[in-house]
Parts: sequence; C-alpha cells; structure tokens
Amino acid sequence: MAYDLYYWPGVPGRGEFVRLALEAAAIPYRDVGCDDGFAAILGDLETPRDDPPFAPPYLCADGRTIAQTANILLFLADRHPVLAPADERYWLHQCQLTIMDMVLQAHDAHHPVGGHLYYEDQKVEARRAAQSFRDERIPKFLLAHRGDWLAGARWSYADLSLFHLVEGLNHAFPLRMGSVARDCPKLLALHQAVAALPELADYLASTRRQPFGNGIFRHYPELDAA
Amino acid sequence: MAYDLYYWPGVPGRGEFVRLALEAAAIPYRDVGCDDGFAAILGDLETPRDDPPFAPPYLCADGRTIAQTANILLFLADRHPVLAPADERYWLHQCQLTIMDMVLQAHDAHHPVGGHLYYEDQKVEARRAAQSFRDERIPKFLLAHRGDWLAGARWSYADLSLFHLVEGLNHAFPLRMGSVARDCPKLLALHQAVAALPELADYLASTRRQPFGNGIFRHYPELDAA
Repeated sequence: MAYDLYYWPGVPGRGEFVRLALEAAAIPYRDVGCDDGFAAILGDLETPRDDPPFAPPYLCADGRTIAQTANILLFLADRHPVLAPADERYWLHQCQLTIMDMVLQAHDAHHPVGGHLYYEDQKVEARRAAQSFRDERIPKFLLAHRGDWLAGARWSYADLSLFHLVEGLNHAFPLRMGSVARDCPKLLALHQAVAALPELADYLASTRRQPFGNGIFRHYPELDAA
Repeated sequence: MAYDLYYWPGVPGRGEFVRLALEAAAIPYRDVGCDDGFAAILGDLETPRDDPPFAPPYLCADGRTIAQTANILLFLADRHPVLAPADERYWLHQCQLTIMDMVLQAHDAHHPVGGHLYYEDQKVEARRAAQSFRDERIPKFLLAHRGDWLAGARWSYADLSLFHLVEGLNHAFPLRMGSVARDCPKLLALHQAVAALPELADYLASTRRQPFGNGIFRHYPELDAA
C-alpha cells in the first residue's frame, strides 16, 4: 500500500488531520505538496479521473483517489486497525465530522463573506462572526467533550484530530481559550495526552509539521477576546 | 431493524437527506419529530448516552445512536445495499460530504454571522455573503457534476441528496439557478430523473415531505440575482 497525500504546502490546514493519523500509525506516505511544491498539487488536480476530488486534501492509494478529510480518515482506519477500533467506526467518524464542522467555523470566523476574498476585505463582517464563534460555538463544542479518549482505552484518529483542533484554537483565540479552559479539564487532558504520545514525538518535533500562518487557524488580535 | 429518526419538524432541513434514502429504499422508520413534535426532540437530546449526538438529525437503531447526516447515510448504506454499491462507498460518501458542505454554505449565505441570531440581525452581512455564494460557490459546485448517476447505472443515496440540494437551491436562488442551469444539463437531468423515480413517487406527493420555510434553504429576494 503506497499512499500519496495531496495538500497545499506551507500551512497545516486540513491536511494535518491526515498527517497526524499517518504519522501516529507509522504508515509510510509521500507528502506531495511539501516535497514537490504548490504547482504539483495544482497540476495533479487537472488530471482526469473517474473519482475527482473537489478540493485537497486527497489521498491516492492503489489507483484510487479518496477526498474529504473525514472520508480519508475513515478509509485509513478501515485498512489500519491501529487507528480505530472497528466497532466504534461510526461513533468516531461522527466525532470527526463534528470536528471538521468546527474547523470550518474557525475558518469562517475570519472569512464570513467568502474564501475567495482577502481577510482585509471582510474585516467588518469578521468582527461579528468571530464574536459569535467565540461566544456561542467554542463553549458549545468544547463543553460537549466529557470523557477521556473518544473511544476505548487508547487513542484513535479522532483524538489526534481533536488535539489539532485545540492547537489551532489556542493559536487563533488564545484569550478565549484561556477563559474557557477552566471549564473543560477532560478536553485539556486529552490534548496533553496526545501531545505526549511517543508515536507522535518525532513528527511533532520535525519540520514536516507545518507552522500556522495564513491558513484555517489565524491569529488576528482584533478577533479574539476572553 | 427498527429505525427512529430524530429531526426538527416543520422544515426539510438535514433530516430530508435521511428521509429520502429511507423512503426510496422502502425502509420502515418512525419520524419522531413529525409524529411527536418539537418537544420530543428536545427531550430526547437530554437523554444520557455513551454516544451523544451533537445535533439532529440522528438515527436510533438497535440501541445505538448515529449522528451527522453523511454518517447516517453511510451507516444505512452499509446495511442496505440498495442504497449504494459497496465498492463505491468511499466515493459516494465523498460526494455526500461535498453536498453537505454546500448545504452549510447555502445556510450561511443568509446567516453569515451566526445561527443563533435572526436573519434580520445580519441582513447587511448576508448581502455580501449571498453574492459570494451565488457567484463563486454555486457555479464551482454545479459545474463539477459531469456524469449521469454518481456511481454505476442506477441511483444511490448521494443522487437523492443531490436532487434535494438542487431543489433547495432552486427554492432559495431561482434567478441564479436559472442563469447557471444552461451550463449543467447533466445535473438537471439527474435532478429530473430522481424526481421521476417510482420509488419516491408516494413520498414526494405526501404530507410527510416538509415544506421549505425558515430552514436551511430560504428565499429572500434581496439575496438572489442572476
């Protein structure tokens, strides 16, 4: 099984959820965007296919193309049991889809008008959208997590994703996360437990991990508040 | 297998994608919101569970709860092969997730600031968001469909969902859909083919089908343009 991951280089983005799973499970893969650059992704998107991706990330494996972040993780978990217990597959996929909803909302907090425009062209709208995201969505989502690992007695791919979501929110909304944190100790414990996984130590310390920047999770001080 | 569908009554909403699959496959189910009302959904959401839903729709089956629209459809298709060919499960799920992205964007076009506020409280922002949705998202999404059925030689659940998405967009953005339609004859043919399915004739003519209204797909004339 050879896996080629296609995602824009330079930011973690949605590709990071796939990378964390591949890395933690020690599954070999090629990160085409990081290895060959932006143009390689643009070029590959033009390749005619029976199963075209609508957007990156997508994974090419054994002649097929799998797109949509949560779908890629479902596909990988079906093939690699280390990523998730089989009897929890719908539950973990449900958690993953809810995480991806939150990821999109974190993006739309700074891009409420449209992704094709610059942030600077929607700063006025972003002020209100970010307030709504901070006040309504962040507590509703974070407080929903009341357990330890999402399924069973060890990590699964959705825990890795939840870790990265918290990383992203900490980066983008440090004041708000600071004030909410005291109310969700279980979630913070999960975040720390993933950060300390031996399976991820090499990756998290490596340059393969992309820095936050002008991606999904952006720190604009004017959009944050406790 | 007994299925109880939990969704807010009165609008098609995300529940409609599940209803269309259950109806077309002639799978018996109970529509709890439509039968027992809004309070029954609110009450059930308070039930302690190991696998709590984050939000409706969710499906209760054999003591488990499955949430997230696309995950419910994946679960049903795994159990009922009439809904999808097994060797196309990732492809169809990928299509379904892209349809659900578009559904959310259709909602956010009239609610760009936040779902907890009335439309009247975000009309200014909605003008720009709807223009972006009409000009950028509708063509990119609709023109991506270049085939006949999404998989194989007959309908699958994702075709039913695509039908309902086109129904919703026709309702909410009639002027824009009128101008884009000429460029996507394959998609319109699929929409008409689903509308004419004998498997759906009873349902589509019944009062079980909820009317559009103040749901995801809303017709605000000021948000539409060719």
